[in-house]
Parts: sequence; structure tokens; C-alpha cells
Amino acid sequence: MLIDGLQYCNWSEKIFSELRDSNVTAIHVTISYHEQFRETVSNFEQWNRWFEKYPSLIMPAYFAEDVEIAKKRNKTAIIFGFQNPSPIEDDIGLIEILHRLGGRFMQLSYNNQSLLATGCYEENDPGITRMGKEVIKEMNRVGMVVDMSHSAEKSTLQAIEISERPIVISHANPSFWHPAKRNKSNNVLSILAENEGILGFSLYPHHLNNSSNCSLEDFCSMIAKTVDIMGINHVGFGSDLCQDQPDSIVEWMRIGKWTKNIEYGEGSASNPGFPKMPTWFRDNRDWNNILTGLKNIGFNEEEIDKIKGKNWLNFFRNSFRSV
Amino acid sequence: MLIDGLQYCNWSEKIFSELRDSNVTAIHVTISYHEQFRETVSNFEQWNRWFEKYPSLIMPAYFAEDVEIAKKRNKTAIIFGFQNPSPIEDDIGLIEILHRLGGRFMQLSYNNQSLLATGCYEENDPGITRMGKEVIKEMNRVGMVVDMSHSAEKSTLQAIEISERPIVISHANPSFWHPAKRNKSNNVLSILAENEGILGFSLYPHHLNNSSNCSLEDFCSMIAKTVDIMGINHVGFGSDLCQDQPDSIVEWMRIGKWTKNIEYGEGSASNPGFPKMPTWFRDNRDWNNILTGLKNIGFNEEEIDKIKGKNWLNFFRNSFRSV
Repeated sequence: MLIDGLQYCNWSEKIFSELRDSNVTAIHVTISYHEQFRETVSNFEQWNRWFEKYPSLIMPAYFAEDVEIAKKRNKTAIIFGFQNPSPIEDDIGLIEILHRLGGRFMQLSYNNQSLLATGCYEENDPGITRMGKEVIKEMNRVGMVVDMSHSAEKSTLQAIEISERPIVISHANPSFWHPAKRNKSNNVLSILAENEGILGFSLYPHHLNNSSNCSLEDFCSMIAKTVDIMGINHVGFGSDLCQDQPDSIVEWMRIGKWTKNIEYGEGSASNPGFPKMPTWFRDNRDWNNILTGLKNIGFNEEEIDKIKGKNWLNFFRNSFRSV
Repeated sequence: MLIDGLQYCNWSEKIFSELRDSNVTAIHVTISYHEQFRETVSNFEQWNRWFEKYPSLIMPAYFAEDVEIAKKRNKTAIIFGFQNPSPIEDDIGLIEILHRLGGRFMQLSYNNQSLLATGCYEENDPGITRMGKEVIKEMNRVGMVVDMSHSAEKSTLQAIEISERPIVISHANPSFWHPAKRNKSNNVLSILAENEGILGFSLYPHHLNNSSNCSLEDFCSMIAKTVDIMGINHVGFGSDLCQDQPDSIVEWMRIGKWTKNIEYGEGSASNPGFPKMPTWFRDNRDWNNILTGLKNIGFNEEEIDKIKGKNWLNFFRNSFRSV
């Protein structure tokens, strides 16, 4: 069973068909970045139209059982998440509402300071805020997973400590391999794993050693080294695939509504758009390259099964229901 | 199993306890009158807090199975509905969103003309609108029930004709018994029943013969006469109980946000507030009086079972899921 822990494509019948052709059973889809509640609801409406239009390709997944149903019915299960707490605005009651609508992951911050936590691009990281502590408790209660992919280190460590349920870093890589602001220290990775969390390995070029020119062998050997730190049960994929998105989208991801100035994040003035994907992972058609790469680096079948989806499925089983 | 097809109380632990003391298994609760989408979501949030606070008394019901679970667990199942299409604003996609949140009934109009249909206080009734036809189709698809309790006659007859699934008049009485604008003609009642719909008998004094002084015998004999018209399988209760509400609420029901002038609806300048309930139905404590009244008028046990809840449960079973 192949599960991808994060995608944000420009969705179309073509992409849904490619997910099916590659036998991808489930993906965690970002449904909101900077959208407030009402805008997020409109995004759910758009997905409802796609579920209605492509019932043989995709279905919503509310619980792990739905992922298993999708597997049996040869569909791709869609699990929703938010890359920012914007959808809950300043209203803790919206967590349960959004959980009911299908939201299963929420980042406590994107790159900036949020009402809840600090983003990895801020100069100072005061840690989880007063509201952040209440929100973690409520997310724990209803079964919405704390995701610290874009958060700063102190906030991340505090979130792991405060949360009574395991959390995730759905899409990032270790900074020992590529020291981007978005990648994570060995300390964070060890503590994440000790607390039964999951790291999803990113394929977004800015998170890769040598960016778009990263080799498959290098990527797979990074996975092996991370497994040495975290153990085989706490890793999965979180490709961060942004297939078919125009460059205006990466600009919007970076500037949202919080600034009127251009801000390049992991890009630069000379390279402001989406980076070119590695040749061995153009999109969902190429998962087999990675599975072969893992085999070639020495992972056995059981280990590959865990990395490619079993760990995520176990995590879903323990995380999506209220306690 | 006792099911009430409409209540709008000023909810409290006291009322939830009375529902349990009287063994009421399920109630259809109005969660919005004139509230737009975001305000309706806030009302769902308030109910989530009550579900969290009183888990031994109440639970949300999304499907008929949940009503059966409530029965087994000695709780009262709460089923939500809207007395106006205000919560969907002008956005047909909100029907599926609100269904997911638990909305199972929606009136196509309250007393006024809406975007969808005409209310019973309008001078002219042009029938179901263009958007109304689309909305009925979408409600049919997702499993949200069309309720025409407050609608005008032509709109009601058209809604029955257009809807491919049975509809309801959740709370009203026959006009042959008491000719209020809110009560329904024999023609509407016959056609409603022919199309497998349900009428919920109202206990709101303005819908009763002799208002607050209506006798229990008179009410029960009206039920018997209505069963002669509609058959025993198409009737239930829809008490319209507004327990513990201040008079400001009935004014708000009438004027909403659509007028700045006082409008008395079924009341009058000399009697603007909530009318006094009949002595034999003060609130949920008195259901047994009505059941005894039905027995005294000659209904047998099987018939009473149908009127008091079996008909509603069957209706829920066929109506709340997508086709």
C-alpha cells in the first residue's frame, strides 16, 4: 500500500488517473494554506465536486478504514490537511467543525509566527503560545494531527512535549543531509520518533541535497541514515508534490495575505518559481523508481512496505478518532 | 420509541434531562432560522460543546442507525435542521457541507419569499424558483430532506412534485381543524402522503384549535381525522416546542434581519410573545398525556407506535443517505 504524506497539485482528471495508474492508495492533500474558514469551506466544496465527478478514481477518507476501502475498490483515498492554522481563525470551536468536514492534519504554523506557534523563517521562536496549548489539547481530543513541518525548532519540540498524541512532520528532510531552514535537526527527529511521530520524506527540490540534481541514490541513502536515527517505524513519504501548479502559486504560498512585498522563501530573485523536479521523480508516475532505489540501497521488502505506506496507515489508525 | 419532529428550546441540562426522563429517543432540532452559513457553524460549535458536556444525555445523529444507538444507550439523539435556506446563502455547494456537519432537514422558505420558494405569509406564490429546482436536486442527491412547514401552497405542491425523494411538513396541522396560514389544506396533506412524505403534528398553540385552550381530546381526534386522509404511515409528532425561550426569540423568528418593523405573524400586538402551552403538554414531561389521549380516542398499540416514532424512524432510514 503506497501512501504519500503530502501533495498540493493543481488537481485534474489527469493527476487522479496517474495516482490510480501508480496504485497510490492514499494521499494527504493540503486543502488550505492561507485561507480563512469560509475560503477553506469553498475548497472542501471544490473537492466534493471532484468526488462527485470522478467516483471511480478518488474518495474522501475520514478514518484509516476508508483507506482500506479505497485499496479494495482501486481508488485513491484523499485525506485533508491545513498548512497553517488560518482555517480556524481565532475560534477553537472550528477545530471540531473542520475535523467533521475531513481535516486530519493542521500545521501550527507555516513559515511565520501564527496565533499558535512560530514558523521556521522567524528570527525568534518564543515557543507554543497560550492559544497554541489549548489548540493542541483540542486537536488531541477530536483526532486532528499536529503537523510541525514548517515550524521553528523550539516550537516543534514544545509541540511534541505538550501533545498527548503523536505528531508529524509530514514533509521535510533531515538538515544533516541538506541544511535548509525547512529541514529538521537530528534532535527533533529523535524526539519525534521517541514520541511515536512520523517524518514524511520530501521530494521538493529545495529540501534535497543538490536540489533538482539530487541523485536517487543520495536520496535513498539519506533515508537509510534517517532510519538509523528514527527507526524503521517512524518514517514515510511526504513528497510535497506540486504538480502542474503555475509559478504564481509558489509566490502565493510565500506571501499569502501577510505582505505586499515579494518574498522568496527557499527560492531567490533569480529562481522565484517552482524548482524542477528530479528526473527520477517527475510526479506520481515515478514512485516505482524510489521503491527500486530503496531496494538497491539494501532495504528488505518488509522495511519498504513500512516506509511506503504501512507506517502512515498505522499512524492514521491511532490518530484520526477522538480519544 | 418516541421521536419529535421539531423542537427549538432554550437548551439546558434541565431540558436534556427532561428528554431522558420522558424517554424521548430523538428530536429534530432547529439549528438555524435566519442565520447565514458562518453563524450556523457557530451554532454547530455550541452543540458540540453540549455534546462534550452532557455525553450521558445527548448525542448527534447523522443516520437512522445513530437513533437506534441512542435508544440502546439511553440517550436522546439530536438531528439538525434549518427553518430557512439562509445557511446555504446563494451557494449550492454548502448543502453537502452542511449535510456533512449534520444538517438533515431544510425548509425551502420560512414565512417570506426565499431564493428557493415562497413562504405562507407572502401575497403571491410564484412557486419553486430556478435555484430552488437545483437545490431540491442537490438535497435529494446528498440526503437532506425538503421541509415545507412554513411554505405557501403552490410552492409546497411543486416541491413535492419536483423532489425525487419524499419530503416533510415537520410541524403543522391540517387547516380543516384550525385555518391558520401555517396549517395545511387537505389537498397538500393527501399529495404529501401519496408521495411517502410525513406530517408532524404541531403543539404550538397558534396551530391548535382554540389555541392554548385546545383540549387533548380535540387534538387527538384531529389526529384521527388526519389519519383518515393521510393513512397511518405518514404522520408523526413535530411539537414545535420552544421551551424556556424569552419572548425576544419569537420576535426574532418573525423579523429576523429582513425588516426593521415589528411583525406579529401568528401573534398580535396585544399578544406578541410566546403563547402559553396547553396544560396537557407543558413540555417534554407530558408526552405520556398525548399517548394516553391517542389510546382513549381508539388508536391501537401498533398505530400509536407508528405515530410516536416508528414512521419518523422509517423515514430517516430512507432519507438521510446519498442515493
